[in-house]
Amino acid sequence: MENRIKLNSLYSPTNSLIKVKRGVSIILKGQKPDGIYIIKKGLVKIEREVFSEGNFTTEVCGSEDILGLSEIMNNEDYNFTATCLTSCELYFVSRKDFYESISISPEIYIDLMRYLCNRIENLENEILVQSGYNLHDKINRLMLILARKYSKSDKRSAGLMITKSDIAELLKIPERNLDKGISQLISDNIINYSDKGISIKNLKRLKAVCNEF
Amino acid sequence: MENRIKLNSLYSPTNSLIKVKRGVSIILKGQKPDGIYIIKKGLVKIEREVFSEGNFTTEVCGSEDILGLSEIMNNEDYNFTATCLTSCELYFVSRKDFYESISISPEIYIDLMRYLCNRIENLENEILVQSGYNLHDKINRLMLILARKYSKSDKRSAGLMITKSDIAELLKIPERNLDKGISQLISDNIINYSDKGISIKNLKRLKAVCNEF
Repeated sequence: MENRIKLNSLYSPTNSLIKVKRGVSIILKGQKPDGIYIIKKGLVKIEREVFSEGNFTTEVCGSEDILGLSEIMNNEDYNFTATCLTSCELYFVSRKDFYESISISPEIYIDLMRYLCNRIENLENEILVQSGYNLHDKINRLMLILARKYSKSDKRSAGLMITKSDIAELLKIPERNLDKGISQLISDNIINYSDKGISIKNLKRLKAVCNEF
Repeated sequence: MENRIKLNSLYSPTNSLIKVKRGVSIILKGQKPDGIYIIKKGLVKIEREVFSEGNFTTEVCGSEDILGLSEIMNNEDYNFTATCLTSCELYFVSRKDFYESISISPEIYIDLMRYLCNRIENLENEILVQSGYNLHDKINRLMLILARKYSKSDKRSAGLMITKSDIAELLKIPERNLDKGISQLISDNIINYSDKGISIKNLKRLKAVCNEF
């Protein structure tokens, strides 16, 4: 979907921009929400609990995604935990500011609806990554999805750095199964791999191996 | 989420209620949308295309779900195919009627937003079914999810009839892997199994084995 959604009417430069380090949880299950977070840059994983089996990642949110909208609108406690997969920059918009913005510009509802529709479509497309592709393609597609989520600009999205264990968790496979695919991406000069994690060296080439141009 | 969403202001008894048989596609990828469908009863699978690998089911929609909202709001062609998994009853609301209803009652936007938030949450919880549980629990949870989607009333949701091959497709496993779990559900008197498919005999007991009451 190419319709760019203008959610910046929800926040102003006076809204505090929050910088959060990798590994920090910004939302904890059971907490009461007092506003929404809009991701400016970075990746945030959403984890939900499976009865007696622990936490599982059910979605990765990125640049321009909103966290906690449902809880603010339905006046409910958070039933997920949100943790930064990379260092992140987020805007916080308090409940009061959120409803004030909407009463001043009710057309925000239309933008928010479009945003939620896009998020459903993206979520369904990510389910595809789990189902259809062979493992090699899965790694490539996931890297591209994460790069796009990390930042909306190609230039900045190339700055993504993610660990191998996070990729294994997101693909729900053992870490060692990634070795062959990652070696291929390194020898194709598409990624860099260091102690810190995996970063994208050539986004254009990554798009090409995913048949996207 | 227990906040019941009132979307019935979008349609009236004068809107034609459409009855569709199992296996019929109501939306085809590439078509232009001329309205939205609201499912009254039944299950509809959403299929998306994986480049060169064919179609995969990415979501099952049910009672009170809306199909085509994104395409109407973004003025885009459908990029999915929607096919009835059971016999279905749907309301069709034309684009004109949709926008007229909203201009008369702008609060519909809030209900639609709540609906979209709930759908995202449901979609994430279904991803959980794929990741967390052992196969036996997966079958139980999927049956319960489908029963709840089929109809919002417990009494009517027990009327769900679904084929074994559809369940295998939704769980993305070979059909024969279902045999043990289905045998267990039969011997526990939870389901009936015939040539026509699987139906729920005791919804209360199904909820109990899923730890939901």
